[in-house]
Amino acid sequence: MDYDLTLTKTLTRATDQFGHKEIVTKLDDGGYHRYTYADAYERICQLAHALDEYGLERGDRVSVMAVNHYRHYELYYGPSCSGRSIHMTNHRLPEEHLVTIINEAEDRLLFVDPAFIETIESIEAELETVEQYVVLDDTVPDTTLSPVTDYESFIDGHPTEYEWPDLDEETECGICYTSGTTGLPKGASYSHRGLYLLSLSYGARDSFGICEEDVILPVVPMFHVNGWSLPYSGTLYGSSFVLPGTHTDLESIEELIREESVTIAAAVPTIWTEMASYIDDNPTADISTLDRILTGGSSPPPAIMRRFDEEFDAPIIQGYGMTEASPHLVNTLVTTEVQDLPEEEQYDLRTKPGQPTPGAELRLRDEDGDPVPHDGESTGEIQARSPWVIDEYYARPEATQESFTDDGWFKTGDIGTIDEYGYLDVVDRVDDIIKSGGEWISSVELENELMAHGDVVEASVVSVDHERWQERPVAYVVGGDGVTEDALRNHLLDRFPKWWLPDLFVFTDEIPRTSTGKYDKQSLRTAFQHEHGSLPIESSGEPPRSHKD
Amino acid sequence: MDYDLTLTKTLTRATDQFGHKEIVTKLDDGGYHRYTYADAYERICQLAHALDEYGLERGDRVSVMAVNHYRHYELYYGPSCSGRSIHMTNHRLPEEHLVTIINEAEDRLLFVDPAFIETIESIEAELETVEQYVVLDDTVPDTTLSPVTDYESFIDGHPTEYEWPDLDEETECGICYTSGTTGLPKGASYSHRGLYLLSLSYGARDSFGICEEDVILPVVPMFHVNGWSLPYSGTLYGSSFVLPGTHTDLESIEELIREESVTIAAAVPTIWTEMASYIDDNPTADISTLDRILTGGSSPPPAIMRRFDEEFDAPIIQGYGMTEASPHLVNTLVTTEVQDLPEEEQYDLRTKPGQPTPGAELRLRDEDGDPVPHDGESTGEIQARSPWVIDEYYARPEATQESFTDDGWFKTGDIGTIDEYGYLDVVDRVDDIIKSGGEWISSVELENELMAHGDVVEASVVSVDHERWQERPVAYVVGGDGVTEDALRNHLLDRFPKWWLPDLFVFTDEIPRTSTGKYDKQSLRTAFQHEHGSLPIESSGEPPRSHKD
Repeated sequence: MDYDLTLTKTLTRATDQFGHKEIVTKLDDGGYHRYTYADAYERICQLAHALDEYGLERGDRVSVMAVNHYRHYELYYGPSCSGRSIHMTNHRLPEEHLVTIINEAEDRLLFVDPAFIETIESIEAELETVEQYVVLDDTVPDTTLSPVTDYESFIDGHPTEYEWPDLDEETECGICYTSGTTGLPKGASYSHRGLYLLSLSYGARDSFGICEEDVILPVVPMFHVNGWSLPYSGTLYGSSFVLPGTHTDLESIEELIREESVTIAAAVPTIWTEMASYIDDNPTADISTLDRILTGGSSPPPAIMRRFDEEFDAPIIQGYGMTEASPHLVNTLVTTEVQDLPEEEQYDLRTKPGQPTPGAELRLRDEDGDPVPHDGESTGEIQARSPWVIDEYYARPEATQESFTDDGWFKTGDIGTIDEYGYLDVVDRVDDIIKSGGEWISSVELENELMAHGDVVEASVVSVDHERWQERPVAYVVGGDGVTEDALRNHLLDRFPKWWLPDLFVFTDEIPRTSTGKYDKQSLRTAFQHEHGSLPIESSGEPPRSHKD
Repeated sequence: MDYDLTLTKTLTRATDQFGHKEIVTKLDDGGYHRYTYADAYERICQLAHALDEYGLERGDRVSVMAVNHYRHYELYYGPSCSGRSIHMTNHRLPEEHLVTIINEAEDRLLFVDPAFIETIESIEAELETVEQYVVLDDTVPDTTLSPVTDYESFIDGHPTEYEWPDLDEETECGICYTSGTTGLPKGASYSHRGLYLLSLSYGARDSFGICEEDVILPVVPMFHVNGWSLPYSGTLYGSSFVLPGTHTDLESIEELIREESVTIAAAVPTIWTEMASYIDDNPTADISTLDRILTGGSSPPPAIMRRFDEEFDAPIIQGYGMTEASPHLVNTLVTTEVQDLPEEEQYDLRTKPGQPTPGAELRLRDEDGDPVPHDGESTGEIQARSPWVIDEYYARPEATQESFTDDGWFKTGDIGTIDEYGYLDVVDRVDDIIKSGGEWISSVELENELMAHGDVVEASVVSVDHERWQERPVAYVVGGDGVTEDALRNHLLDRFPKWWLPDLFVFTDEIPRTSTGKYDKQSLRTAFQHEHGSLPIESSGEPPRSHKD
């Protein structure tokens, strides 16, 4: 049957089958906004009519710069289902990046939270395509933006039903830009088909098992790769949503979980590590309604995973992916085979991202493009394909050329291993891996081990040029008072060969981060090179190759 | 990304990620055949090479007439993934139907179990396109079929790797014929895309939740609408399979569940009703590994559902669909709203098939094509659309014309209601509904109520012509010694208006069934008409319309 897989189908499924389910938003003033899918649908229809009246054409894009709230949710559907596209923008990006991406995407309207108006005001003069600003509120504050209106006035008075167009499933529904540790952000354009299929796959028991029973709290921002696409999947399955607005501190998250009986919360691992401490310090805290926790970006420590299993009966499910994969490729899957292993080994395995999710395929390739054995040791670039992986960067033919193989796989730029149980481990970024004397050193493994030391708060290991070994690791460390270089060297030697050890330890008060909160290794590297140039031969006591020779 | 959703993807996912998982077959001699996905894959590759060597072209079809065993499983993949198509045939069909469908599908090869050779021998002379018979065994028994070989010889010696073609996802992977209560069977041609998507959707927690942990026992024959497509979905998710071969008696099913730690078994409701009694009679019986039970075709009694919940902790999940829907459209979904209802009401609701499954859409339309309210009372034709619903009957333009609406929905021919909780109930077939004096009488509801009477073993209610009221119900009843017409009339009057009651009760020893085990209402009707002609006016004591007038 000629049946297009579109987000319109997810929207109407929620409305027709689960129209009474709730979307709850915590507002800036601490109050709550509550409404149902049926209510949201009416406003989404009004929004689509407003876009028609404005004269937005099929394929035109709108920018949205907002935190997680119900109006943002409406913007996930109104433009896309009426044949336009939503460009979710990250307010933390450097201003020059924002200007570049909004101009490149040719966004005609820009929807913005009152909190981010100032950011937009400061770049307004450089925005070449934006014709109209819409403030995500019911009034317009004092602003230089022009022309400007408020969201409620924009949609007000329009009909609450809409004749959705029959869209081809390959139609773009949205675009997100990669945060770009090097160079300018690149646009990942998503199709209805891709996001529908990812949403469907999220319902699988072997993925996140999103279902009607769920109450989903996306702590992850909705401007980060579609809020990990949870707002789409939860809609398909008729889950309830709890949107935290600006309230993403631990106290607010705990309160939202407790008061709204949240069953799934999604956030980076740090939040869950901190939540465990928060609960220790606050005896009345209660997250017992949580059924499972979604996380990604890095691995949660085994001790935290164990605690969430045993104390809260809420297993932490890891995901691995990236902007280009909408973002999901891999998740925790404790297979029957792994269930038979001793518990310690299971937790060790669970620090790895997991297995390819249903609908996604992975492979490892060496630098010559040849297959790499799945032995848990051999490393190769992780390459992926799936209906929800993009096949080009928007308007960037060179970047596209570099990032896709001739046979149609996406080169993630990450280096990984796959073990005998089928578990992927991400050992490094291609960009960050330290290629030293013909061997590769994993900066991520060094970082993890450094951070496992009790006195280390943060650690980032970067590759710097070396006169003999091409590249060598240098460690930037934020530590407590007692921490010494000797102590850290000894700590690392417990696990790694001597030639893996950083040539230099730089103790610092803070490690710079990118707009998405990752360590900004590029800026560390640049600063180091600027100050020191290349490391001299004598910086490495032992040649890296000696380990193998 | 241009990523075709094909069965090849499900096959390679199983092999790459779950190659060690088992497919177990109970053989005719009572022994077991065990191998892994990796083993199966090698033989599937050999099969594909054998089809190449034979000269089978892209798009060509092969017939398979077999029970559930590992060679049948291999035939689910070898032809389809190499660009051909499998036509699963039901050995219980009347011979003239078999001849018609094999000729219409233009099957070039015919794979057949030794047990069904006789059936094929008796129609061999009429098969116009079959060039080669392959017996699903390692020897060829004495047969008139010619040319004939055995399956093991057919695939023997071929390479165990195969370069699968890049198939467009719309390519046909298989064809099944509807059992056809009236007229000749009609062909439903399935695409790779449709079956891939249904397989993916089966993994959803809100559908059947097929997952890697599962050990699936399809009691439902693999020649019935792809064995409800479980062999495809279980492969995608890396489940283990237990294939019962010819051993589908209760004792064997219980033994397979117990010995192979089956977690999901799929069979019609009768099996589960009988299994409950079997367990009462056999204290050593043990089905405790079952996690859930899939059923369809009719509703299991609430008492049985409750028992499987409470005693075996294995909820019965109903499905509703048909050959044209691959076959799945609707399944049990106990929503949060329903979970809040009293237990009795929950079980009542669970006798209904349930809610549209993720990826399928339903609507109810009256005879004018207008929407029918979702009030649990108003009836209309159930119409469906989904990527796994066909959009035409193979080579039958008239049947296609009749069965699809202008806006692209499939007219199921079933009459249903949808209640306030979104639950579909199937109250009758359009073909079987009794249109009496402008009102509709549900033969299914009458049958269910008759069968709820303690003295009734079987009951089938058919529509016969009536001189005044156009149609009236007649009941065929297989009952115990004590059962009387008066008793049944009084029993029905407890629930239905007088005008719903059958004009005639025919007590009989057996009710004829179609090849798929359904009551053969068409033959009952024909026999009645032949013997009695139309019912006279005086047969109905009260005009049907009096209820409304």
